Amino acid sequence: MAERSLVFPAAEYRRRCEALQAGMAAAGMDALLLTAPADVFYATGFLTRFWESPARPWFIAVPAAGDPVAVIPEIGRDLMSRCWVQDIRCWPAPDPRDDGVGLLAETLGDMVPAGGRIGTPMGLETHLRMPLGDYAAVAERLAPRAFVDATAVVQRVREVKSEAEVEKIRAACALAGRAFDRVPGIVARDPRLSSVFRGFQAALLEEGADWVSYTAGGAGQGGYGDVISPAMDTPLEAGDILMLDTGAVRDGYFCDYDRNFAIGPPADPVRRAHDALFAATDDALAQLRPGMIAADAHRILSRGLSQRGAAPLGGRLGHGLGVTLTEWPSFTPLDMTELREGMVLTLEPGAEVSPGKILVHEENIVLRASGPELLSPRAPADLPVIR
Amino acid sequence: MAERSLVFPAAEYRRRCEALQAGMAAAGMDALLLTAPADVFYATGFLTRFWESPARPWFIAVPAAGDPVAVIPEIGRDLMSRCWVQDIRCWPAPDPRDDGVGLLAETLGDMVPAGGRIGTPMGLETHLRMPLGDYAAVAERLAPRAFVDATAVVQRVREVKSEAEVEKIRAACALAGRAFDRVPGIVARDPRLSSVFRGFQAALLEEGADWVSYTAGGAGQGGYGDVISPAMDTPLEAGDILMLDTGAVRDGYFCDYDRNFAIGPPADPVRRAHDALFAATDDALAQLRPGMIAADAHRILSRGLSQRGAAPLGGRLGHGLGVTLTEWPSFTPLDMTELREGMVLTLEPGAEVSPGKILVHEENIVLRASGPELLSPRAPADLPVIR
Repeated sequence: MAERSLVFPAAEYRRRCEALQAGMAAAGMDALLLTAPADVFYATGFLTRFWESPARPWFIAVPAAGDPVAVIPEIGRDLMSRCWVQDIRCWPAPDPRDDGVGLLAETLGDMVPAGGRIGTPMGLETHLRMPLGDYAAVAERLAPRAFVDATAVVQRVREVKSEAEVEKIRAACALAGRAFDRVPGIVARDPRLSSVFRGFQAALLEEGADWVSYTAGGAGQGGYGDVISPAMDTPLEAGDILMLDTGAVRDGYFCDYDRNFAIGPPADPVRRAHDALFAATDDALAQLRPGMIAADAHRILSRGLSQRGAAPLGGRLGHGLGVTLTEWPSFTPLDMTELREGMVLTLEPGAEVSPGKILVHEENIVLRASGPELLSPRAPADLPVIR
Repeated sequence: MAERSLVFPAAEYRRRCEALQAGMAAAGMDALLLTAPADVFYATGFLTRFWESPARPWFIAVPAAGDPVAVIPEIGRDLMSRCWVQDIRCWPAPDPRDDGVGLLAETLGDMVPAGGRIGTPMGLETHLRMPLGDYAAVAERLAPRAFVDATAVVQRVREVKSEAEVEKIRAACALAGRAFDRVPGIVARDPRLSSVFRGFQAALLEEGADWVSYTAGGAGQGGYGDVISPAMDTPLEAGDILMLDTGAVRDGYFCDYDRNFAIGPPADPVRRAHDALFAATDDALAQLRPGMIAADAHRILSRGLSQRGAAPLGGRLGHGLGVTLTEWPSFTPLDMTELREGMVLTLEPGAEVSPGKILVHEENIVLRASGPELLSPRAPADLPVIR
C-alpha cells in the first residue's frame, strides 16, 4: 500500500467540502467546479508543484451532497489516490482531440439536473485554469445547465482558517524568521543583491521551507523604488535600505512578510518612516477586531502613518494569506469584506520616504475574537543595521 | 535614471512583436490580448515573481502595427517602465468596482475597429489569467468586436527560440548539471527524501539559479510510483532508485530535466530499463530532424524502448521548453505539430520496470537543421550508484 499523501486527516477535507456545500445550497448551486491549484489543494489535499506545467487542466467537481469527484490527467492518478477522494476519473492528457472536455461534461451532467446551476469562481482574485475554448465547449454540452459565479461561496469558506491551518502558516512564518536572522551573514558573504536573494532562498530551504514560491525585495539609497522586481547584480552600499520579502511554503501553506535592513546607519528620514510603519502596525495589532471590514484595517494603518508624519502608499496595505501568497480581502478603502475570527491576514503599511523611494513593513496575523495574534515574529522596533 | 530591467536588448522584443503581428495579419486579427505570465514576459521582458499573487490581472495589447500597450496595476509601473514598452496605462488595483475592465476595454476599443477581431489564446496549454466575469464584461463592452482564438499565432512564434534564448536555456541546464553532480553529497548529509529535495534546491541556487520553480522526484525500491509528488520524510534505503527533476530558472528561462541515482547496486531489471531509456534517447538524438512532427518523436522514443524490451509509459515522452517549464508540442501519437529548427525540446522516455514502478529519463535539446544539439549535459550511460 503506497504511503498516504495528505497534509491533514481526511476529516479536515470533508469538513471543508461540507462547508462549501452549505454555501452552494444557500446560493442555489447543484455543483461546484474547481480548477485553480489552491482550490484543488484546499478541497482534496492534492499537493504538487506540477501546476508549473501549463499543459494539462485538472478538475474537481463538488456535488450538492457527498464526496467530490476528481476528473484529472492520468499522470495524477497515483498521487490523487493517496489523498482522500475516492472517485477519480482520468484521461490520457494531453489529448488534442479532447483534453478532458467529454469526461468533465459527463461528470457534471450526471451530477446536475437539466436546468441546474454549476458554480465556478469568476470574480476578483480568481482565474479559470483550463483553456477558454474548452470551457465554452463544456458549457455548450451542459446547456441548459448554466455556469454561475461561485467566488463568494469559495471565499467565505477558505478565508476562515482552521487551527490546523493556522499552525501550518505559523510554521512557515517561523522558518522565515530564522532565515531573516541570517541575512547579515548572507550580505557579508557577497553584497550583490542577486547573490543576497539566492542566499536568502537557500537559507529558507535550510530552515525548513519545502520550496520558495516567492522572493522579492529591493535596495536603494534611502529606500527602494518598487517591491516586485527581480534582483540585479548591483552590490549593496552604505546608505542603502535592503528589503527582502518572501512567500516560503511548508506543507502547502505560505508565509508572506518582509524585513528591512539598513546598510550602515540609516538617514533620519528613513528612520522616521520606519518608526511610523512600526507604530502604525502596532495600532492595527491593538485595534483590529472581527466584525470590522477590510476598509477599517486600511483606515487604521493609513491614519497611523499620517498621524506620525509619514505619507501612506497608494494600493493595498495588507491582505489575506494562506494557500496562496495573497488572498482576499484587500486592505483598501473600497473593500467591504467583513473581517472574521480565524482569518489569517498581513498588515503591510508602506510609506514614501522621498519621491520614488519607499519603505514597506509587513507582519502576518490570525484574527482572534480578542484581536490579532502575531504569526510572524515581530520585527525589531529599531531598523536593524548591517555594518 | 533607474536601472533598465531587460533580459535582452529591446530589439529582441520588437522582433517578437513583429513576428506576432505577422501571424495576426495572416489570421485576420486586429489586436492580440496577452494575459499569461509567460506571454507577458515574452512580449515585454517584464520579469517578476509577483504573478504568485492571484490578486491582480495584467494585460498586454498588441496592435496590428506598432508597439504594444501595457494595461497594468499601478504597482507594476516602475518595473514595466524599465522594460521597453513606452505606452503604460495603470489603474490602482485591486479595485472591486472595476479592476482594469474599463481601461482594457478603452484601450482595445481604440485599437480595433467596430466589427474587428481580437485574438487571445484559448486552446490547449493556455489559460486566460483574468477573472472570467471580467473577461465577459470586456467582451460585452467591445461588441460587435469579437474575441477569437490566437493560440496558434502565439505558439508558432514562441516555439522557435532565438540564439539569445537558447543561450539562456543552456545556462539554466548547465547550473542544474552542477547541482545534480552534488546529489551524492546531499544524500550523504541526510538521506530523508524531504531533506534531499531541500538540499538539491539550495544547490541549484548556489550554482546560479535565480529561483527554483519546480522540483519533483520520487524514490522507491526498484523504481518510483509517480513523478509529480512532493517529498515525504522517508529515508532512502539500499535498493531505492532516486529521481530528481527540476525546472530551475535563470533570467526567466527554464531547464527541465531529471537524473536517476541508485542507492546501492541496482537490481538487474532496473539496469536493463535504464539502458533502454538511455539508448532510446540516443535514437532520438540521432534521428530527430526539422520537418518531422511531434508524433514522430514519440514513435522513435517508444520504438527505441520496446525494441530493447522495455515497456514505454503512456502519456507524453517529451515536450517543448523555454519560458515555462513545459511548452507545446507534446510527444504523443496524436500531436501533429511540425518540429522546426530552433525549437527547444525535452526527450523524456519513461518505462515501467515492474507493476507500479517506473523509471524516467530526460534531456534538453535545441533542434538544429542537422539534428538535436544537447543543452543538458548528457546523463552518464551507466546509472550512477550512491553507496
